[in-house]
This record gives sequence, C-alpha cells and structure tokens, in this order.
Amino acid sequence: MNAPPTLSTVTEARLLRDEIRAGRHTAVTTGMARGHLQANLVILPADWADEFEAFCVANPKPCPLIARTEPGDPALPTLGASIDVRSDLPRYRVFRDGVAVSEETDITALWRNDLVAFALGCSYSFEAALLDAGVPIRHIEQGKKVCTYRTGLDTVPAGRLHGHMVVSMRNFTVPNAIRAIEITSRFPRVHGAPIHFGDPAAIGIADIDKPEYGGEPDIRPGEVPLFWACGVTPQAVVEAARPRFCITHKAGHMLVTDRMNEEFRQS
Amino acid sequence: MNAPPTLSTVTEARLLRDEIRAGRHTAVTTGMARGHLQANLVILPADWADEFEAFCVANPKPCPLIARTEPGDPALPTLGASIDVRSDLPRYRVFRDGVAVSEETDITALWRNDLVAFALGCSYSFEAALLDAGVPIRHIEQGKKVCTYRTGLDTVPAGRLHGHMVVSMRNFTVPNAIRAIEITSRFPRVHGAPIHFGDPAAIGIADIDKPEYGGEPDIRPGEVPLFWACGVTPQAVVEAARPRFCITHKAGHMLVTDRMNEEFRQS
Repeated sequence: MNAPPTLSTVTEARLLRDEIRAGRHTAVTTGMARGHLQANLVILPADWADEFEAFCVANPKPCPLIARTEPGDPALPTLGASIDVRSDLPRYRVFRDGVAVSEETDITALWRNDLVAFALGCSYSFEAALLDAGVPIRHIEQGKKVCTYRTGLDTVPAGRLHGHMVVSMRNFTVPNAIRAIEITSRFPRVHGAPIHFGDPAAIGIADIDKPEYGGEPDIRPGEVPLFWACGVTPQAVVEAARPRFCITHKAGHMLVTDRMNEEFRQS
Repeated sequence: MNAPPTLSTVTEARLLRDEIRAGRHTAVTTGMARGHLQANLVILPADWADEFEAFCVANPKPCPLIARTEPGDPALPTLGASIDVRSDLPRYRVFRDGVAVSEETDITALWRNDLVAFALGCSYSFEAALLDAGVPIRHIEQGKKVCTYRTGLDTVPAGRLHGHMVVSMRNFTVPNAIRAIEITSRFPRVHGAPIHFGDPAAIGIADIDKPEYGGEPDIRPGEVPLFWACGVTPQAVVEAARPRFCITHKAGHMLVTDRMNEEFRQS
C-alpha cells in the first residue's frame, strides 16, 4: 500500500464529483482525476444483494468487489467521505425485469430504502499503470472508448444470478502484450490479467470488428488482441437473471473515488 | 525472501553434487533436487571477465547473473559451501577460439589460475513454479528436453561480446499462457517473463519443428508457443566473439545449488 492520497488529489476527485452531482459533467470519466480509482456500479434491491455479493466472490475477474452500501444508504465512506451514489456518476442505466428502460444523470428520484449499491474495480486503474510503464493503448491515443464484447464464456452462477462474461479488448505488439499481462496481473482487484488473447472466436466473439459497446477496433499487422473481464458483465447478468429492478452505471461513466490506483497494486 | 533452506534440503543438493563430482551422474539434472536453484555456467579467462559481467548486466533476461568467482578460485560460496565448479556439473563444453572442441565430465585438468566462473539463473526454477501452480509443461510430461532455438534477435553488445539470443520454448493453451507469463514475471532473476509468443518467424526462427537443441515440439491446436530468453545464449555469444578459451555447462546439465527457487521469487 502506498501513502494515503494528499489533500490536493482528494480534492481533485471531489471537485469532479461535485461537477457531476451538479449535472455539469454528464460525459465519460475516461482519463479524468488521473491516478484515482474509478468504479463500476451495480444497485439492486436488498433481497438480491447477498446473491450479488456471492456472485462477485465467485467471479472476481469481471466483478472485483471493492465496497457495498447498507440498504437504503447511498454512501460509500471507504471510497470517499462525500460520495452519494444517487448523484455522483455522470450517467446511469435503469433496468426493470432485466430490460434497460432508461438512462438518467441522477437517480435520487428512483432511490428506495431497500436498495444496496456495489462498487466494482474498473480497468481505468490498470490502464493508468500501462501508460505509466510506457505501454501505449490505441483507443486512448485515438480518443475512442474501449471496445467491449459479449462472450460465450459462462460466469459462475450464484443463486438466481447467471449469464455470460463481457470483456474489454486492447491490442498490442507482442512485447507490449507480455508487459501488459505482467502489469495487469499486479492489479487483481481491478480485473487482473487478461482472460484471453488471440483468436476472438475461442471465447465466442463472432466478429472482432463489431464490439457491443465502444468504438471500432484498430488492430494492426503483428498486433494481438488481449481480452480482460469487464465490469459491464453485471449488466449482461441482470439482463439474463431479470431482477425486478436494477440500476447500473453506463459504460465509461464511472464513480470517481478518493482512493488511488496505487493502493490497489499488489506488491 | 523465504526462510533459509533446511538442513535436509541442502543435503539433497549436496548429495547430488557429490554423485556428480564422483562421476556417477553424468546426465541432465532436469527435475532433480526439486526446489533447488539450478544454474547455467560460463567460465572465461580473467581478461574477458569484466566484459562478460557487463554483458550480463546489459542482457539480464538471457544472462541473469547470480554469482561470480574470483580468478582461479573454483568456489561459489554464496550458492553452496561445498561447490567446486570444476567437478560439480555433469557435463561441460570446452570452446577454443569460439569453436566447441570437446565435452567433459570434469574440467579439473583444464583449470587455470586466470579462469573466472559465472553462474546464471536457469529456467528450471520457474518451471518448478509453473508445475506448482498446476500449469502443465509438455516436454516435462513427455520426459523430453526443452526445445531451444537460435533467434535473429541481437543481444546488447558489451566490449568484444555480441551475438544472437537463444530462446527456450514451452507451449500452452491460452489461459495457461497467461498464467505462465504472470508466474514467470515474478522470477526476473531466472529469465523472467517470455520475450515473445506466437509467430516464431517474428524472432527469426525459420522452423519451429527444428529446434537447435532439445526434443521435438508437440504443439497442439489452440496452443501458443511462448519463448523465454535462455541461459545457453552465452554459448552462441562465445561462438560469435571467439575468446581464446571458454568452458560452459552443456545444455540441461546444470550446477545444482543449495539455494531455493523461492528465494528468487519477487514478492
């Protein structure tokens, strides 16, 4: 573990959350408050919460659980003293019976006393570590969103929760692919090492040029695609398991925390 | 660092060295004295020694230096109190002017007061870690030698020393390839992570079915070859740089030390 964040860096994350809370930033948080841990969000009714936690424990690569609220409490004090999960993400997706029914920039009006929020680690943390190590990331260079794909890989079911894994893809030269595996393996709490590289069909991706979310891939001769388990996986699980109600972040529109990525690096 | 080796394990390595010293074991040391660090050996005249040490520093992946003797002194006390490099390896190669002229099982008669011996880390250490983690290694399962290849990759020259890198190859399913990169990256003093995977031609290997040393590869559909920098590289360098005199181990016939592999794992 590194030294605790300094006041100035905490302030940077809090000021960004203030902008988001005030509705002045509703776009992706990619590259913002650099060095800060960003998190995926899943909100479920309390009668699904223990099953979701069990699902995270059973699927630590797509769902690395870093914090959970009490029912009805929108605070995540271990991630930031001021966090309110109802207003502090730029964009949310609302699901009813497993169907995405709306996108919101604030969910205060939808909040209920039985809702439990889960924060999951996000690949933005290891992307920062890759860039710090001089490993270039094509979609960041090109100002695009990361490409994500639904796969044919089953997650490990827990209670009523089941579904296929979603992965994010980054392409590298072979030496950089090796570096990327080395570096991300040091971040098991933010998805860790990739789950696959090479042939997309081997994990049930029919066409790598057609991601589910994100921009178009730009894979050049001699480069290899690496696939990481992705924190969007719970959204595919919600679609498969159909809980009555669920709110998640929208891909790329993350919870920016006061914690630093470096705190989540294994020694 | 782990606890120091117990008496019984040190004894196992020393008893094996005693067998080798007595000429009763002249075959490869693969899989013997399990858990003990085995080492590559390079012996050069003193007027080449500083250049060779500089070469190791410049090329830590093929030449991870772990110990060096004083001129004329055949002992390596940091690796084992009883070690005598003149007799404690099962098989040596003798080079004159860069040409391999003989193989020996004891080099006491060739020893000179100006010779300096270098011990370099060996992939047997990380192979043990792979097996401990449940990652199967085909050539070990089949009782064959590891396949090694000369590549077109230049080492970083140091003084008169230069030449191409030699690599060893192990093939895995993709998930095991990722695990193998993760695990071996924790052993930077025994070659560390691979330097390449996939297309052999990209590093100048014309035909993967024709290794320079070792057995025939058995690469099955869906498997990927991973290539590690190899401690046989100095033998290719000696052939290129042509020092008047040099002695090395013969591939697979290593110095078995009292030190434990685990001591060389990064936390």
